[in-house]
Amino acid sequence: MGAPAFIAGDWGTSNLRLFLCDEDGVQLDTARGPGAAEVGGEFAAVFDSLTSGWQQQHGALPTVLCGMVGSSIGWTQTSYVGCPARPAQIAEACVELRGGRIQIVPGLSCRNRLGAPDVMRGEETQILGALHLEPRLREGRHLLCLPGTHTKWAMLENGAVTEFLTAPTGELFALICDHSVLVGDGREHARALSGGASFEEGLAQFTRIPHTQLLHRIFECRSRRLTGELATAAAADYLSGLLIASDVSGALELFAGIAPTVCLIGTRALTALYGTALTRANRETVHVDGSAASLAGLARIHQLLSLQASSHAG
Amino acid sequence: MGAPAFIAGDWGTSNLRLFLCDEDGVQLDTARGPGAAEVGGEFAAVFDSLTSGWQQQHGALPTVLCGMVGSSIGWTQTSYVGCPARPAQIAEACVELRGGRIQIVPGLSCRNRLGAPDVMRGEETQILGALHLEPRLREGRHLLCLPGTHTKWAMLENGAVTEFLTAPTGELFALICDHSVLVGDGREHARALSGGASFEEGLAQFTRIPHTQLLHRIFECRSRRLTGELATAAAADYLSGLLIASDVSGALELFAGIAPTVCLIGTRALTALYGTALTRANRETVHVDGSAASLAGLARIHQLLSLQASSHAG
Repeated sequence: MGAPAFIAGDWGTSNLRLFLCDEDGVQLDTARGPGAAEVGGEFAAVFDSLTSGWQQQHGALPTVLCGMVGSSIGWTQTSYVGCPARPAQIAEACVELRGGRIQIVPGLSCRNRLGAPDVMRGEETQILGALHLEPRLREGRHLLCLPGTHTKWAMLENGAVTEFLTAPTGELFALICDHSVLVGDGREHARALSGGASFEEGLAQFTRIPHTQLLHRIFECRSRRLTGELATAAAADYLSGLLIASDVSGALELFAGIAPTVCLIGTRALTALYGTALTRANRETVHVDGSAASLAGLARIHQLLSLQASSHAG
Repeated sequence: MGAPAFIAGDWGTSNLRLFLCDEDGVQLDTARGPGAAEVGGEFAAVFDSLTSGWQQQHGALPTVLCGMVGSSIGWTQTSYVGCPARPAQIAEACVELRGGRIQIVPGLSCRNRLGAPDVMRGEETQILGALHLEPRLREGRHLLCLPGTHTKWAMLENGAVTEFLTAPTGELFALICDHSVLVGDGREHARALSGGASFEEGLAQFTRIPHTQLLHRIFECRSRRLTGELATAAAADYLSGLLIASDVSGALELFAGIAPTVCLIGTRALTALYGTALTRANRETVHVDGSAASLAGLARIHQLLSLQASSHAG
């Protein structure tokens, strides 16, 4: 473990996680704070108060921040790097604050396989991290899946992100659980990440018949409860099975024949659910922890920025 | 116009509409009141206060009520009549209150084409009304569509409802408009019923490519705004185009070859949007006003109950 060398931060809509790191990206200390939507524009004050201890002890540390901190609701607005995007291009497009001491990571944009514009912000850093943590991803073509509020499916070719596709699967799940009579009440929301028998049943039901009837299937969360075929406590599990099966089958149809293995990046609970759905669709999966990927990606960007700085200096 | 003969009432989750009718079901007067979810269980008090004027003037009038008034949150809980269901069976299964002076219409249940249980409550009365208003529906096979919060697709065979299918299309639309960053804010919600160019674009985009990617398409409401391809004010229109196209194409796939004409029952604004989507799918449409259908259905049930009463008496 080396000396403190930089600060890495993943500043999303609803959470800030800061890491004090050594030059190799090994985490020495951490801090948590409010998300970009919660700081009321006071990014500088929040950042300074959370890091003042580190900075007093170790001097003014260079900092790399990713996520919504670089969006229209963020500290500063970074652009989107167009695909195909290589790690070095992402590092080069970072936006500097405080004379370069703070670097904000840009998002990525592409035209996806449906012919529509698509964007990501935060996931690009996790993908860079996965490239570091899983060296085999650096060669050839790979399909990545980053499940979440807005699930991203991304394609890598020889280490570059060539395109991606978004499905707001997690957001729809939360909307229906929190606000709809379809599932009942919000209390079973958290349970759905357990992936029980009703989750498997949702997966199975969705794929049993040509799967264009997602809307019609969703009503089953209510009708199967009325008939007693589904316990109220299991309705959210069933819903998550239907939604994840729809997300997975729609994405695999578009990315047919790309790779037999899908690399899942995210929390253990959520990648497990997608892993089950992908196994049902005859895909193998590799799981990369989402937090570890964020940290590794931020460290990789810090490293690339240091290299660029020394090459400019040289 | 004859003498006041009965009271008809459509008591849904969020609205009560009462009609004073002559024996032929011609509306002589109307009243409005709170929905079943809003009366705090005080159904009798609300009903009496709204109808006391009519009852004082014209005596104790027989009453037929349909909708959520007969559900688990209603005045009394009626069962579901299994499909195939004929109008006379629906009338026979009405639940009596106050010694038969008030009749509550039951819902319908079936196992739908996806193999799942399905239910309706309130729409069965509109279907009975449509059978009265459109005599050609009484012979042969017909596909009906009742768009709304929970859109119903129903099949008629020689005047009986043989099966139906629900999609919570309107509910998902409202959830996303009211609570999600995908569309922006809730203010454009009402606009979406206008069916502008962005609605047509949503329809077209959804059907352009094999349409299993509803979830992935929904993200376009956000990404196309970020690129300027879609005005914020038009995002709800685009969303309604995607959702209605998905509902229509999923249903037509299941009900393939049943009838070239689809009978739409509902509000003018909503049946117009579904009409556009069905025209794109090479179907002809007939439109029946939803309120007129409810009233005609309640009158038909009153008539059937009167016939049953006189045959029991005879």
